[in-house]
Amino acid sequence: MKIPVVRDILEANERIAAENRRIFNENRVFVLNLMSAPGAGKTSLLERTVDTLNGEMQIGIIEGDIQSSIDAARLSKKGVATVQINTDGACHLDGNMIRGAFSHLDLKSLDLLIVENVGNLVCPAEFVMGEDHKVMILSVSEGDDKPLKYPLMFRESSVLLINKIDLLPYVDCSINKIKESSLKINPDLTIFEISCKTQEGLIGWYQWLRDMVRTSS
Amino acid sequence: MKIPVVRDILEANERIAAENRRIFNENRVFVLNLMSAPGAGKTSLLERTVDTLNGEMQIGIIEGDIQSSIDAARLSKKGVATVQINTDGACHLDGNMIRGAFSHLDLKSLDLLIVENVGNLVCPAEFVMGEDHKVMILSVSEGDDKPLKYPLMFRESSVLLINKIDLLPYVDCSINKIKESSLKINPDLTIFEISCKTQEGLIGWYQWLRDMVRTSS
Repeated sequence: MKIPVVRDILEANERIAAENRRIFNENRVFVLNLMSAPGAGKTSLLERTVDTLNGEMQIGIIEGDIQSSIDAARLSKKGVATVQINTDGACHLDGNMIRGAFSHLDLKSLDLLIVENVGNLVCPAEFVMGEDHKVMILSVSEGDDKPLKYPLMFRESSVLLINKIDLLPYVDCSINKIKESSLKINPDLTIFEISCKTQEGLIGWYQWLRDMVRTSS
Repeated sequence: MKIPVVRDILEANERIAAENRRIFNENRVFVLNLMSAPGAGKTSLLERTVDTLNGEMQIGIIEGDIQSSIDAARLSKKGVATVQINTDGACHLDGNMIRGAFSHLDLKSLDLLIVENVGNLVCPAEFVMGEDHKVMILSVSEGDDKPLKYPLMFRESSVLLINKIDLLPYVDCSINKIKESSLKINPDLTIFEISCKTQEGLIGWYQWLRDMVRTSS
């Protein structure tokens, strides 16, 4: 009995996500679903991105957390439109939660909407929400075996940001190993090596965003 | 319709976990459910623990991973009985998976069985498997806001190991903040500050294990 129920949930979610997608397209807003394990640097990446690109383009943020609004508070300080979703225990965001959240945003005024998913390297990759692309972060302190152990997220993502490269001298992690095994899973993956702390490598990520937003608007 | 189905799954799991628990008690084996986000150091902790305590006590390991047997290979090198569970997409271990796995172990000969759960700070905390205690690892590179954002695992665990303290000079993380907010969620939490890399602080963890195994056998 379990499997049909799960399939129903996934199918219902895909219908809602398709409808979200239609609304995003209509409003010419480019939408990213940002995923990673807890503490890999999603909110820090958003802070840097907003600092650099806000003004040049209109950015909106949806923050997904099981509990608390710590991340939304960090972002709204930057003066961008931010909505917090508390999933109340749920391990991922889905199409319906996003629909409830974006009704609080003026989509017409936005060029870029980034959804920060719940910190979880497993479940969020299974649920679409109407996004244009999935983007994932892996921090070097998590180790270089993660693509082999959590392949789905690497397969589903268009961009992999390898973060915290400033920690490379202090951790046992080979960037080449991460790249090799990620590209074996997903040969189309665009990879950036970055440090949100030192800002190293972020220029490539900003340029990718600019190109994508320009194409979609 | 969704909620009753989930409840059924949780209740069915609790029945199987209770039966596992009975079997573990009968065989006088002390069982831990080890949980953390991906890359926090579960397997490294097990390697150190086995190096130090194997011989003094008989240790068995069940490795839970979505895919691959990298971790089981690391542990079985150490000469301990190791079983790998591949969840094939599932984000946590449950009672039934453990039952299937421990049938491959000679429980009678074991003093301590450690189950390494799937790397995930959310879902594993919801599923019992018949363990005596839940133990969690948080690495300092994940940041000090994690107890507030993922409270369930901190509430359910008996022990919190704060790992990678060798990285403290290079990351923005306050150990005191982690301790304060964890203890607010769970005042009974036993906390050890450790580095699996330098072995700092591991003596307290070994002693906790010795005391627990002695009491249960």
